[in-house]
Amino acid sequence: MSTSFEARLQAIIGGKTKPVGSLGRIEALAMQIAKLQETDQPDTSSCGLTLFAGDHGMALAGVSAYPQSVTRQMLLNFLSGGAAANVFADVLGVSMQVVDAGVAGEPVNHPELLSRRIRGGTNDAIEGPAMTPDEFDRALAAGRLLGEQADDPVVAFGDMGIGNTAASSLVTAKLTGADVGDLTGRGTGLDDEGLKRKRSLLQRAAARTETHLTARDALREYAGFEMVMIAGAMLGAARARRLVLVDGFICSAAALAALGIDPDIKDALVFAHRSAESGHAPLLAALNGDPLLDLGLRLGEGTGALLVWPLVKAAGAFLTDMASFDSAGVSGPA
Amino acid sequence: MSTSFEARLQAIIGGKTKPVGSLGRIEALAMQIAKLQETDQPDTSSCGLTLFAGDHGMALAGVSAYPQSVTRQMLLNFLSGGAAANVFADVLGVSMQVVDAGVAGEPVNHPELLSRRIRGGTNDAIEGPAMTPDEFDRALAAGRLLGEQADDPVVAFGDMGIGNTAASSLVTAKLTGADVGDLTGRGTGLDDEGLKRKRSLLQRAAARTETHLTARDALREYAGFEMVMIAGAMLGAARARRLVLVDGFICSAAALAALGIDPDIKDALVFAHRSAESGHAPLLAALNGDPLLDLGLRLGEGTGALLVWPLVKAAGAFLTDMASFDSAGVSGPA
Repeated sequence: MSTSFEARLQAIIGGKTKPVGSLGRIEALAMQIAKLQETDQPDTSSCGLTLFAGDHGMALAGVSAYPQSVTRQMLLNFLSGGAAANVFADVLGVSMQVVDAGVAGEPVNHPELLSRRIRGGTNDAIEGPAMTPDEFDRALAAGRLLGEQADDPVVAFGDMGIGNTAASSLVTAKLTGADVGDLTGRGTGLDDEGLKRKRSLLQRAAARTETHLTARDALREYAGFEMVMIAGAMLGAARARRLVLVDGFICSAAALAALGIDPDIKDALVFAHRSAESGHAPLLAALNGDPLLDLGLRLGEGTGALLVWPLVKAAGAFLTDMASFDSAGVSGPA
Repeated sequence: MSTSFEARLQAIIGGKTKPVGSLGRIEALAMQIAKLQETDQPDTSSCGLTLFAGDHGMALAGVSAYPQSVTRQMLLNFLSGGAAANVFADVLGVSMQVVDAGVAGEPVNHPELLSRRIRGGTNDAIEGPAMTPDEFDRALAAGRLLGEQADDPVVAFGDMGIGNTAASSLVTAKLTGADVGDLTGRGTGLDDEGLKRKRSLLQRAAARTETHLTARDALREYAGFEMVMIAGAMLGAARARRLVLVDGFICSAAALAALGIDPDIKDALVFAHRSAESGHAPLLAALNGDPLLDLGLRLGEGTGALLVWPLVKAAGAFLTDMASFDSAGVSGPA
């Protein structure tokens, strides 16, 4: 990025008909988009959400308040348009595609489902690696391709997978060196006893590998196929200079892993919201991320990322459509 | 509001296909809208922004970084579509109307301008009342009628008026009993010296009346016509059970005054964002308001309120369009 391009952007933003800096983080967002796309006329015309679903062997050990079958049921709910992600996407003008990354049971047949199934769920990561190196490579590559080939200049990713807050706590622990107990939250809504059990299971899972792992190893040991695909999709999308809206806890863990694989993607990431899932705060600190929204969300499915899309549209339009003091004949400060 | 209606709403929200409470403030917003409209199928189909412009006699005394002529120039900018409010409204699908509440100079003739001019700007409120009792009554009534007769179930109001952070600091001081010095901020961008001068002028202005004033007297003594109309519009819109998106510092001061006139409108108000203008934090505390957004905005024009509209749309659609565990055949917690 040349300094002169950045200076020119600053001058354009400073010349808009408003007090300098008075649009706060919208201005910073506009600057980020323009720099990513290397133009002062960035394209924020559309956003697409890709929602990845996958199952976790760990779920059968009791790390979630919900049964594993809910992943599949929710996949069908996404396909029939009834989930929160569908409703938000519809109302905010975001297109949505659903990917089977590896949901337990027989493959779902549906004309609108994109199948990238690795297998019907990962192994139980408490006892051993969640997936083989080959499965990991295939999942990452499938995600990367989807991210690269996306239709939209702005992309959001969402997750569905019973057990995936547990997996995200483990991945984050292994990438940051933190105690997984400090990153373990209630997920879909565990009570105190359930939380205690989940923490104990995750500590057992963490104990079977080194304190620090590489991004690839952390994902391979503990992630779900949907999380690996999200990390891959972030890598592919960011490399194609798409703006990546990073949802909550699961997507942030995928982002941390993706950054471990390719630190250069940082400039493409927009941290959407601060999740109410308790591990998200330390994870965001590790990412040096300051999310735009703080609405107490903890659903996943990309719902928080979707709610940031209007801010991105506003930031783009601010840069491309708003008048300057000169063009509008408005006086500057006295 | 009957308890049974609220219980039914809680049951509907609790039955949506997601962990209980996992959409955080979106759920609370949905509840607020449903209760306001007294239906579990609330209408969040459209939002309209009404932007009120007016001049302040105080501006000539040097309370702003910008010359008074900017109010008129910005009015023309709104009418030609070049301001931040236009750009945000366009991109977020919000209709916009512009009202001349009392801009200095000759009346502006423009087919899309709504003229509700009281006079070409208020008197200098440092030296005496900003307006006469009759002018106050007419401004409040004009605003109230616009709020009542709005086309949309959701309404946002915006302000333009050089000097109106000064006026809002004074109104807030008189309604809360706080020292106006503690409520004085940089507005459009005063430097340290300018801020000192502004604070001193506002302290002089505050000293000429009692510590506490009624809402009517505080507005009459210190507000601009645009602020009185915004307070009136909030009263009219809320009474007609429209959801009112409250922008930043100026609109929050108008809301505090409107609540002083009619405390029952509280349930219709949504505090949109936490402004970077320093007086907004104590003002929000006085309102017991916890805004949805915190993006460092301090522009006014309703820009912060506009950015909350997508969240309102999402909240409405969550209630009306999202599937239930029953309808989607999704299992609840194990």
